[in-house]
Amino acid sequence: MKYIYLAGPEVFLPEADALGHAKKQLCQQYGFSGLFPLDTEIRMADDKENLGFVISRANEGLIQQADIIIANLTPFRGPSADVGTVYELGLARGLGKVLAGYSNDQTPFLQRTFAEFGSGELHSQNSGEIHDRNGHKIEEFGLADNLMIEGGIHAAGGLFLTHDARPEQRYTDLTAFERILQALAG
Amino acid sequence: MKYIYLAGPEVFLPEADALGHAKKQLCQQYGFSGLFPLDTEIRMADDKENLGFVISRANEGLIQQADIIIANLTPFRGPSADVGTVYELGLARGLGKVLAGYSNDQTPFLQRTFAEFGSGELHSQNSGEIHDRNGHKIEEFGLADNLMIEGGIHAAGGLFLTHDARPEQRYTDLTAFERILQALAG
Repeated sequence: MKYIYLAGPEVFLPEADALGHAKKQLCQQYGFSGLFPLDTEIRMADDKENLGFVISRANEGLIQQADIIIANLTPFRGPSADVGTVYELGLARGLGKVLAGYSNDQTPFLQRTFAEFGSGELHSQNSGEIHDRNGHKIEEFGLADNLMIEGGIHAAGGLFLTHDARPEQRYTDLTAFERILQALAG
Repeated sequence: MKYIYLAGPEVFLPEADALGHAKKQLCQQYGFSGLFPLDTEIRMADDKENLGFVISRANEGLIQQADIIIANLTPFRGPSADVGTVYELGLARGLGKVLAGYSNDQTPFLQRTFAEFGSGELHSQNSGEIHDRNGHKIEEFGLADNLMIEGGIHAAGGLFLTHDARPEQRYTDLTAFERILQALAG
């Protein structure tokens, strides 16, 4: 039985527990065992240590224990994926785990970033590079997010999928997640 | 001679090369050798492969080669650090490297996130949890960013510093960076 660490911004949603349960059910259906960050029993840290550090260590432990990580890389509070999820993906890469990820937003990173941080028309810049309104370069590689994310999954031989979820199901749509399970099981 | 991978959003700045040079000079001054992402010579990828993947692989190679990573975790395009930098920090953690990081913004993550994505008054919520305007929970651990970031550095026994840089030097101020070098050399 292989263990899959279920990384993603679900933990910040009101329906976090239900989503964790649904993802673990799907894992089981495809012959895997899902590990959800909120599964770990965190006892309140004594006041000598920050509770955030205790949770971080528990999550790192789950990733160590896992064989596979499936990261929900749907943009969260900005044009990029949740940074906690991205850290976990990098950690899993360094540990040699099987990587997979998905995003429920199909707009390319360039367009998404420009819409939020650009100014004027996207095609109006004539420097040969695209910059945001602070003069910071925006990547133009046709990828879904910063190149290290999809690049890492690609280098690990992993699967990255995007899915056009309905806005109200942006963080809860499990279509792409299930497709990854199918591919991993197949 | 120990190698330090210089992670950060500097690569997106117009003065990227000058900043890389300045950081490498400081490394040398403290007896280290700095590796800057833009150092790698990337030949244009043939059209069978995405250039973004080629750059990603080169950066992962530099991190493999490094003994230490110093990550500039100053918030970039939103309340959190640059996701590429965060991926690299996670990768370095998985590879067992020495971790260090800094942010040139001293506002705690909670306040910063609420200022950008909250609504109403920060103290007006009475659920016992703080949520953004989309109903997503905001972490309350008094940390500088998502708990996995500072948590990972802490678990690795590394150093994380914040510095109150002037707004126009938000991404270029090297005070905290140099303090980390001093600590590593000391």
